[in-house]
This record gives sequence, C-alpha cells and structure tokens, in this order.
Amino acid sequence: MKDKFYNYIQLLQDRITKKLETIDGKAVFKEDIWKRPEGGGGRTRVIEKGQVFEKGGVNISGVHGKLPDTMQKYFGVEDANFFACGLSLVLHPKNPMAPTVHANWRYFEMYDKNGNIADQWFGGGLDLTPYYLFNEDATHFHKTCKTACDKHDPEFYKKYKARCDDYFYNSHRNEGRGIGGLFFDYCKATPNMSMENWYDFVTEVANSFLDAYTPIIEKRKDLPYTDHQINWQQIRRGRYVEFNLVHDKGTLFGLKTNGRIESILMSLPPQVQWVYDHHPEPNSEEERLINVLQNPIDWV
Amino acid sequence: MKDKFYNYIQLLQDRITKKLETIDGKAVFKEDIWKRPEGGGGRTRVIEKGQVFEKGGVNISGVHGKLPDTMQKYFGVEDANFFACGLSLVLHPKNPMAPTVHANWRYFEMYDKNGNIADQWFGGGLDLTPYYLFNEDATHFHKTCKTACDKHDPEFYKKYKARCDDYFYNSHRNEGRGIGGLFFDYCKATPNMSMENWYDFVTEVANSFLDAYTPIIEKRKDLPYTDHQINWQQIRRGRYVEFNLVHDKGTLFGLKTNGRIESILMSLPPQVQWVYDHHPEPNSEEERLINVLQNPIDWV
Repeated sequence: MKDKFYNYIQLLQDRITKKLETIDGKAVFKEDIWKRPEGGGGRTRVIEKGQVFEKGGVNISGVHGKLPDTMQKYFGVEDANFFACGLSLVLHPKNPMAPTVHANWRYFEMYDKNGNIADQWFGGGLDLTPYYLFNEDATHFHKTCKTACDKHDPEFYKKYKARCDDYFYNSHRNEGRGIGGLFFDYCKATPNMSMENWYDFVTEVANSFLDAYTPIIEKRKDLPYTDHQINWQQIRRGRYVEFNLVHDKGTLFGLKTNGRIESILMSLPPQVQWVYDHHPEPNSEEERLINVLQNPIDWV
Repeated sequence: MKDKFYNYIQLLQDRITKKLETIDGKAVFKEDIWKRPEGGGGRTRVIEKGQVFEKGGVNISGVHGKLPDTMQKYFGVEDANFFACGLSLVLHPKNPMAPTVHANWRYFEMYDKNGNIADQWFGGGLDLTPYYLFNEDATHFHKTCKTACDKHDPEFYKKYKARCDDYFYNSHRNEGRGIGGLFFDYCKATPNMSMENWYDFVTEVANSFLDAYTPIIEKRKDLPYTDHQINWQQIRRGRYVEFNLVHDKGTLFGLKTNGRIESILMSLPPQVQWVYDHHPEPNSEEERLINVLQNPIDWV
C-alpha cells in the first residue's frame, strides 16, 4: 500500500504542477529534492511571482524511521517505527477575487517490534479560502467534493464537510479560515471499508482537486481589482498565517519534530498585513464574507 | 503593591506614548479602553502609519478574577483567584535601518481561599530586533540594560541577558528573534530581595526604556534605504510573527484564555513577507545579522 500510494502521489504532483503552470502562463515550479537525516525525504515544488499564482507549493514527502518522541506521546505508543507519505499543496493567487486553496492527502503506517504493520490509515482533504465570496464558486467546489464522496459512501460528504468546518477554525477570532471543503483523518480498515476501499476514496478525492479548483481560478484570475481589495486580501492572509502557526496540528508537528522548515512554511502567504482592530464597512462584500466564515453554509 | 504598580504603569504609559509621538512628529496614538467581562480591563494605545512608526502599541492592563483553567494547570493550583497587571509595548519602525523594540513589565498576585496573597511576583524585560545591525546600537541598548541592573545586583545583567537570549529563540529556525536585552520572571521575595526591592528593580529597568531606545530610533529613523532593504525587513518581520505565534507564551496564553485579541496581536508587524527558502547574499550585511542571531554576542 505504501509503495502504491507513494507512486500515486508522485504522478499526481506531476499532473497538478503541469496544469498549474499552464494556467499561470509565466512562472514555473522550482523543484527541491531533500533528504531527511533520519530516513526518507521529499520533492518540494514551489511557484512564486507568477501571473496568476503569487506563491504556492505542491510538495510530496515520504519519511520513515523511529517515531519522534512528541508523536509517540500523541499516539500513546512507545519506540514504534513509522512510515508516512503525502502530498500537500497551497496556492495563493495574486488576484484578490481568486481564492487560496489548500489540499493534503496522506498515508501513515506504524510497525510492531517484528516490523509488521500494527496500524495504518489515510487522511486528508481540500478546502477553499476566498477573499471575496462568489457563491457559485463555493457551490462548485463543494459539489465537486460531494460527487467524489458519494461514489464511496452517501454519508461521507456531510461528515467530512462538518469536520473541515470544525478543523479549519480560528477559535481566537471566532471565524473559519475559509469556506471549507473536506477533512478526514484516521481512515482505518472497517468491515465496510478495507484499506483498498480507502485508497480508492482518497485517490478519488485527490483526482477531483483540479476539477474543483481550476474552473474557479480560470474565472477569477483576470478580474479587475483595486488597492482596497488588495489590502483586504493581505489582511485576510494574516488570518491564514494565524491559523497555520497557532492551530494547525500538521504545521506544529513539523516545526517541533525537525521537519524541513521551508517545505512546511511554504504554506504561508507572500505579502501579508496586520492592521489594528480592522473591521469591514457595514453591508460591504468584506462584511458578507466574515458573516459566512462565522456561520458556515450548506453549499450543496 | 498592586495599586502602586498599576499607578506606576499608568504614568509610564503616558510618558512613553508622549515621547514616541514627539519622535514620530505625525501620527498619534489611538486609545481604546476595554473591560474584561470576568474582571478588570485595559487601556490600549496604538500608533499606525506614522512618519517613524509604521505600527506600534503601548498597552496597559489590570485583570483579576478566577484564574483561567489553562493557567491553573500551568501553575499547578486549583480554584485560585488572581490579579495581574502590566505594560506591554512593541514598536515597528518604517525605516529598515531602525530596529523593532519590545518591552513588558508585569506584576502578578495569587490568593488563597481567605483572599490573602498566597504568591506574588514581578516579571518583564526589554529586547531589540534589528533588521540591519549597527554594533553601536546593540552596545548602547545592552549598556543601558546593564546600568539599570547593576544598581540592584551585580549578577542580574548577566543572568537576565542570558535568559533573554534563551527565551526569544526561534528554535525551528535555529536563530534568535533579535539581539536580546533582558528577560526575567517569577521575581519573588527572598532574604536578599523583598517585593519592595523587586519593585525598585523593575521600575528602574522600565524607567530606562526610553534611554535605551530613543537615541537609537533618533539616529536611524531618517537614514536612506532601498527596496531591497525593505524586502529584507519584511522577510525578517515574518520571523517575528513566527516567534510570537508559535513560541511566545504570553501570546499563546492570551489567545487561549479569551484575552482581548486586538490588544494581544497589536505586536504583529504591519507589512510582512514570506519568501520560499530565502538566503542572504554571502558576506552581506543581511548575512552578518543572521550570524549574530545564531551566535549571541556579549555586547557589554
């Protein structure tokens, strides 16, 4: 399973970066191959200062070895060996009318003392963070998520949409990071879902990423915008930074377990502002966004 | 003691904000008085878009009531009441030749079931974060710290300088946030130092803040600079954000105990950049700064 999934994310990284370069039309991804001293490594691909993408990364990694102490504590195990691989992507478009998107699909194995698999699971999802909210974009994104889910279980979309709203929540701001999507974790074998079934589900969701995002970026990338709207985008990007550095478990694990810092923090936006006590104008588009982030909508 | 120290920080806030407005020459502090629903409140003063200060805050607060659950756990007590007050300031100058400065002085009381003081202590310090390093500025700042310390104990400067280097450390980047200053905490009564003695020490340090910082800002605020230097300033401000959101105990306590978010996060810089895998040119001034941040210097 680990070889099968790692091969899959390698091909997926190629497919996604190729498509994004075509959309951008100017910038190309810069590739960094890195090794993890304790075992494994990754292939980081970052795009910067494009016509469409101001900054973004589509990274894969496959790491293994002794489970770091902090993770042993977290999982309640001792001296376990592990393997983990996944693809993570974040894209910050230049145009404030175009939303930031994040996605991640990952697979994890833990081993017993004889080297046999003691536990294994998939996790991941995708979610959208608009600066200006186009309802049709949110609906398209969520419908694409639902279509992928429905092929595997009629309950998945509802369940994983709710988990996404829960997880990507800036509790200190009382608002969601964005308008959600899917979030699932610890997807383990059950009588209904074998690991093969989970593989089919996760790759179905991952395969639908370009269908979910490319029509949106194509529609918004060339819209006109003002300095006021850029300011708003940069202020909202500040909230993105706050979520990733204060609340995101993946980022904090990475920072505290000697991960490759530049690959982890590629998720942070390029140009960001913090303005004291900023509030949007009453009845503005900016205020409408905040209202939706505070009260998630059923987009499908 | 609590009334005496709270009166002191009120007057100190006036003194510092008045001086900073004179230095800026254009922007003035905007004042927000706020109440904490559970008891107490504060007076937040923020300056933005000045000629000298791009963003900054000089805040005081005095809060009391039942110790929040997370802090009970932290201090290992149950159902205690507390009082805490302090002044916190952060100044982000516009000119990249001028350093960011941070300072905080605080006093804490915890009560037993009869309302008597069960524990009390002072804490605080001040520290400097340059973007371009002028050795004479660092030396002046540290000498001013040492002069204040030496009046109270010949060991204090060495001890609290080392603690400052330890505390303001971005472990995930293997570098200090800045070039340090003083950091002390849990300053409790001992046979050598009564609480009155600690009050004298802490106010001596606080009184020296303007002596430590104003000659530096006066000297650097009008130096010429380039776009390249602004970029570097904004990238380094990203590290400031990383420290405050990932490592700073004060910020995280505030965010997780329902503090006034805007007063806590006034510390974040106005314009910030994250660039993937950025490295300064070999033998540049930017590289010299990084070397010093990785290997703290004895400036006195």
